Amino acid sequence: MSAARKKTRPVSVGPVTIGGDAPVVVQSMTCTDTRDVEATVAQIGRLTDAGCEVVRVAVPDEEAARAVARIKKRISIPLIADIHFNHRLALGAIRNGADCIRINPGNMEKDKVGRIIDEAKARGISIRIGINSGSLEKDILTRHGSPTAAALVESALQNIRFFEEMDFHAIKLSVKASDVTAMIEANRALSQATDYPLHLGVTEAGSLVNSAIKSSIGMGILLNEGIGDTIRVSISGDPVTEVAVAYGILRALGIRKVGPDIVSCPTCGRCEIDLFRLVDEVEKRVAGMKEYFKIALMGCVVNGPGEAVEADIGIAGGRHMGLLFKKGQVVRKVREEELVDALMDEIHAMLQERRENESEKPIRIR
Amino acid sequence: MSAARKKTRPVSVGPVTIGGDAPVVVQSMTCTDTRDVEATVAQIGRLTDAGCEVVRVAVPDEEAARAVARIKKRISIPLIADIHFNHRLALGAIRNGADCIRINPGNMEKDKVGRIIDEAKARGISIRIGINSGSLEKDILTRHGSPTAAALVESALQNIRFFEEMDFHAIKLSVKASDVTAMIEANRALSQATDYPLHLGVTEAGSLVNSAIKSSIGMGILLNEGIGDTIRVSISGDPVTEVAVAYGILRALGIRKVGPDIVSCPTCGRCEIDLFRLVDEVEKRVAGMKEYFKIALMGCVVNGPGEAVEADIGIAGGRHMGLLFKKGQVVRKVREEELVDALMDEIHAMLQERRENESEKPIRIR
Repeated sequence: MSAARKKTRPVSVGPVTIGGDAPVVVQSMTCTDTRDVEATVAQIGRLTDAGCEVVRVAVPDEEAARAVARIKKRISIPLIADIHFNHRLALGAIRNGADCIRINPGNMEKDKVGRIIDEAKARGISIRIGINSGSLEKDILTRHGSPTAAALVESALQNIRFFEEMDFHAIKLSVKASDVTAMIEANRALSQATDYPLHLGVTEAGSLVNSAIKSSIGMGILLNEGIGDTIRVSISGDPVTEVAVAYGILRALGIRKVGPDIVSCPTCGRCEIDLFRLVDEVEKRVAGMKEYFKIALMGCVVNGPGEAVEADIGIAGGRHMGLLFKKGQVVRKVREEELVDALMDEIHAMLQERRENESEKPIRIR
Repeated sequence: MSAARKKTRPVSVGPVTIGGDAPVVVQSMTCTDTRDVEATVAQIGRLTDAGCEVVRVAVPDEEAARAVARIKKRISIPLIADIHFNHRLALGAIRNGADCIRINPGNMEKDKVGRIIDEAKARGISIRIGINSGSLEKDILTRHGSPTAAALVESALQNIRFFEEMDFHAIKLSVKASDVTAMIEANRALSQATDYPLHLGVTEAGSLVNSAIKSSIGMGILLNEGIGDTIRVSISGDPVTEVAVAYGILRALGIRKVGPDIVSCPTCGRCEIDLFRLVDEVEKRVAGMKEYFKIALMGCVVNGPGEAVEADIGIAGGRHMGLLFKKGQVVRKVREEELVDALMDEIHAMLQERRENESEKPIRIR
């Protein structure tokens, strides 16, 4: 359905590969004070549980750069240190074990960037060149008048040349803008111009729902065109929700099938069951599950059974009751107040059966 | 940025034009019991206030068909009656003043569909042929094995032929599926095959956030390719949120600029202000506004001022305070607890000024 993914040059962030044949990697960023090691480690733990595969932390001062060493010891996913302005913080973060550094060369002097490149090369880590509409090089901004897609790409290409001249190629690229169409256009142009892996993101995308809209459009259009090797959804809120939205985007496009797909109807004058409460409850109960399966929660019999045929497990509501379906077959009729428990029992039984079938396979092969 | 919009044949739903040169129309559907006229009229009122331009109501029985007449008298936007199985309900709804009928010919006999077409022609109203993956014609479903994109398109084209043989052309089309990629593929194929206006929707898209993701990807990709004349976001929840998400999609693509665009950062270790609370409060205060303007709510000075330059109004957070920007110029420094009020004052002043400038224009022309 989607275009074939563009083949990019694989780059390592610790043990995680970005680009090449690797799946599109989901990442997020902490919003704790990095100097508060306890809080940062706790948040990274929650992100890891939610499926986050790479995490970024802000390093705004020397104390935060020192905290990187202590954080690294207590987390299980690679860490990227995010640095602006001060190259010494980048050097400190690299020495303290960061798996990758994200810098915006637009806000650092060239010779300072060179020092960071030397250190990254010595330690064998990668660098993300992160171009943001909010912090373009002054000369480029002046020439283009505003942070257009062309301005973002020009900045990226100019920086790539500098890194390549220093024989550094462990590069990831991002060109982010809060304007969705500018972000799409810039990434299309960049994907044409280079084969370094691209990190996609709509920057400052807003609160949960607004970001879900902007991020889904921006990343959805690009991923559907085969562009993008890692994604970060940016939300003004709990970063765990960033991970959930990221997997929602990848799942909707069939790019990565992680977590349950819940299909549920908007209800209409035909519905005789409290479907919204049911959907809410089921969403809470399946949150964080990594297995892919499809649940259909339907208010009535018009589309219900038809959709439930496509789902692994489904409910079609009647008058204060529901029919429980499994792979299109009615399992039983259940009273409304017992529906969620009955559904969850069937889900757990299905997943248990799936696991048993999978664990049997190697035995059969022998 | 987006592809040029495909030119479709304009069709009327009461005074609203769908297709042709008309803007992409935002619609929604009530989830009240249509027979409960008070509740339905109240919900349509809230939808209208939110910017809904056409509303659909379910007509599952004769009492609901009769209610259409009373509802119509008390609402200010066109009404579409949604009918399944029973052609008499369609005839009743048309006689009671529905501006358009939505049927799924897959679940009605052909001669009954013919009776509906005759009645619609006599009253000069339009019909939406709504093909759903959940209720395809049995022969088509059998032939394709499952409700694939090709099966949906075959059903649509077969129905169009029947309508055209009866010399009826006031047709809108929809092919909906809960699978986003199938929905995209089916609409692309349908847009190639016909020039009737297309109603886009991902069906049974789930709760607010899940639907925002799926709808934004499905409709976003199609609208960006110039496909789609009216959209309905389907959410298991308050339909007013469907309208907000729909405008969010159109705004992100620059297709229709309705309502404020809020840009806000996810915060990081650099943020020293309670930005999430601020975003939440500002979102609530500007909800329902129709004027387009861009607000930037930034946690720190790294990206803040840069982004605020692009915004009509912005805040960049400092230590328990914020800098208030207007068109890139610092207006003043404000204490954190007074930021929302100060921002809203500036927004209202800006909109007032804009209105005065606009009202002055005709005088100058004279």
